Amino acid sequence: MNTFAVKGNLIHAPVFGEIETQIGSLLEVDRDGNISSVISSDDPELIAREKYYRGKRNLFELSDNEFLLPGLIDTHVHAPQWPQLGKALHLPLHDWLQEYTFPLEARYADVGFANQVYSSLVETLIANGTTTALYFGTIHIEATKRLADICLNLGQRALIGKVVMDNPEQCPEYYRDRSTSVGLNETYELIDHISSASGNASKRVLPVLTPRFIPSCTDEMLSGLGKIASETGCHIQTHCSESDWQHRYVIERHGCHDAQSLDSFGLLQPNTVLAHANFINDDDMALISSKSSAVAHCPLSNFYFSNAVLPVRKLIDSAIDLGLGTDISGGFNPSIFNACAMAVTSSRALEEGVDAALPAHERGRRNMRIDFKEAFWMATTGGGRALDLKIGMLRPKYAMDAIVVDTSIEESNLKIWKDLDSSDDVLQKIIHNVHRTNITKVWVQGNQIK
Amino acid sequence: MNTFAVKGNLIHAPVFGEIETQIGSLLEVDRDGNISSVISSDDPELIAREKYYRGKRNLFELSDNEFLLPGLIDTHVHAPQWPQLGKALHLPLHDWLQEYTFPLEARYADVGFANQVYSSLVETLIANGTTTALYFGTIHIEATKRLADICLNLGQRALIGKVVMDNPEQCPEYYRDRSTSVGLNETYELIDHISSASGNASKRVLPVLTPRFIPSCTDEMLSGLGKIASETGCHIQTHCSESDWQHRYVIERHGCHDAQSLDSFGLLQPNTVLAHANFINDDDMALISSKSSAVAHCPLSNFYFSNAVLPVRKLIDSAIDLGLGTDISGGFNPSIFNACAMAVTSSRALEEGVDAALPAHERGRRNMRIDFKEAFWMATTGGGRALDLKIGMLRPKYAMDAIVVDTSIEESNLKIWKDLDSSDDVLQKIIHNVHRTNITKVWVQGNQIK
Repeated sequence: MNTFAVKGNLIHAPVFGEIETQIGSLLEVDRDGNISSVISSDDPELIAREKYYRGKRNLFELSDNEFLLPGLIDTHVHAPQWPQLGKALHLPLHDWLQEYTFPLEARYADVGFANQVYSSLVETLIANGTTTALYFGTIHIEATKRLADICLNLGQRALIGKVVMDNPEQCPEYYRDRSTSVGLNETYELIDHISSASGNASKRVLPVLTPRFIPSCTDEMLSGLGKIASETGCHIQTHCSESDWQHRYVIERHGCHDAQSLDSFGLLQPNTVLAHANFINDDDMALISSKSSAVAHCPLSNFYFSNAVLPVRKLIDSAIDLGLGTDISGGFNPSIFNACAMAVTSSRALEEGVDAALPAHERGRRNMRIDFKEAFWMATTGGGRALDLKIGMLRPKYAMDAIVVDTSIEESNLKIWKDLDSSDDVLQKIIHNVHRTNITKVWVQGNQIK
Repeated sequence: MNTFAVKGNLIHAPVFGEIETQIGSLLEVDRDGNISSVISSDDPELIAREKYYRGKRNLFELSDNEFLLPGLIDTHVHAPQWPQLGKALHLPLHDWLQEYTFPLEARYADVGFANQVYSSLVETLIANGTTTALYFGTIHIEATKRLADICLNLGQRALIGKVVMDNPEQCPEYYRDRSTSVGLNETYELIDHISSASGNASKRVLPVLTPRFIPSCTDEMLSGLGKIASETGCHIQTHCSESDWQHRYVIERHGCHDAQSLDSFGLLQPNTVLAHANFINDDDMALISSKSSAVAHCPLSNFYFSNAVLPVRKLIDSAIDLGLGTDISGGFNPSIFNACAMAVTSSRALEEGVDAALPAHERGRRNMRIDFKEAFWMATTGGGRALDLKIGMLRPKYAMDAIVVDTSIEESNLKIWKDLDSSDDVLQKIIHNVHRTNITKVWVQGNQIK
């Protein structure tokens, strides 16, 4: 790969709650697709470096209406649920799984169907600026390999798991691993497939150990996965204390909360991502924090399936790494910008409360709000930390995973008023009204994929 | 105007909670721009009528991927707040008004600025399928006349009010009516301007009496407006019991709730639209219902400025007419489809509750959820009823206010899977992931304006 540079306005969020905007900077990318330097507009070296790249025809010059942002990181996506996006939102979690989601996921025994759906999904996420996604597949090894191949071909950074679920009491016969050992063996098979895939020397696609959640797994399966985790050091993803039903189920079966149970199986690792975690208590938070595990906050699906809003600020105060997730299709919107907006909105619901019949002081929970800066941090820097990858910031040694947002597209609801909007306002407006048509360029590891 | 017809798939919601889909029907429009008939696909007359319009070259033939829907009705828009969309969302209502909104609204003394902003707003709402909007302007008569002229020129159906606010205790000196009589006289002036405007013979644009809300008006102003209401029969719009602060303010000043106070001034009429109404109690609901007044539900701005979620189902049970509003810029999204999605989402928050620290049975309020069918009814049929206009349904004698949604646009997050999605699923997916680029045609009173 040739080195190249981008000249223009950069916006990112290295520190929780702060936005750093650099007007007219030059960002340089090395041959490995990593950012090598960011030269600010008042640095005397800038002119010479800019001239160098222009001479090589390796300079992207952004207009005043364009902004370079870190690529978005989606830390919770169910790839097979893509056809279900925006429907089947009326049932509680348990019934939704049994009536809609398991029957849909079972279809991925058909690799042709998987190919069609997964291609559509990955293209859509890239078009929406998602440069990295942490994917649940299905129980099907071939379909899940296909998802990995599609991500390799289309250029997205991806962490992908074959779902394991072998508990006959919670998983229907038509959709569960044929046995515990099959589930474990196929997990190894996916690790091998991804590790040895051609075009994956940079490890842009990674395998993930993926027990669906405790209810769908036998203890034997959870132990087996804990063993693979310690052998391989692979990432781990699962659902944690998502809803009243799921949380209570684990208390009844294991006599403790999800976090403690997962830890007892060796599944709380520094590269573990726990989806939702709405019902974790102070002890769970301390445990998750001490293990350096992370949480994927899925604000939109919280409203539909979690029976509560995640108290983001408490998790941040407990030093838990936090990313954002669309939770396709528990959430109905594929954009992580929308997840930012919903993270703010849901935090307001938690702080203000929702029921006007209660007096104001009983209605909500104080000091729970977050703002757009904090949400954008979760969507970028926080997501990178959650996944233990050098992504999410426009800084030297970070991967060149970035997007250009053009705020001057005609057919768009995003309107900037130059006399009225500060650079922070621009970001806030992008979060609230960007559409994929505003996202004009996407790079992953230095490769332009849109 | 020539008669014309649309042949294709029609979706509308004449009954609360029910979606009516007609595949391959022919909808005929008369010379006045009203729907004259809807001929179903199994009616033997259809072929001859279709041939007639094809012969006249006055037939719009939709593909299988296109759907004709009633135009969307936005029952609460602050036109001057358009440049503020998607920002300044961190303050409570009172402080937001004083620090951000009043200074912005004061700028509309400049008619050139108003022209620029209002043109951008009306174009955007039309592009998003909003065929009718109920607008708050500012205190400025010239700017508000300009808004009416723009709606007349661009073809949107609009109900427009010059905001009156004369209470020196609540309105800053730089932004209030110079006196009560000036506020009332300019209200008359707007009525005259709109009633006599050329191109408005069909009354597509209507004047609206617009006391901002009780806190910003003196009792003299409220009485004066009540008098104009009984003289002219004009529509009325105001805010009602929106937040803890606003609701308490009226209790302290008038010793009663907003609804009762407004009624005492003659402002609760059948064509009154009350924005928000989050804090109304059972007596208020009975009063509003008995007066046949309506409520504009603004679910997104509820999260930011209302300290609670409107219990939609209770209002429906009280037979109160209900429309949806974007509440630009208290809400950050200009699309009424998004308002549908947020109406469902916020109803789930109200039903489930938000604080996981509470036991499930104390967390929410039972049976408060609504679904996408009920939300879509509010966005169309309900909005028409709220405004007392024959709009919102694809039925004979209703105005031809309609949109075409194309579900096969490439650059879109809206994906239909023909083998998997029912016609109800299609509508639900449209609500959740439509973008303005999917809205390919818009008619108002039979005129195609997109």
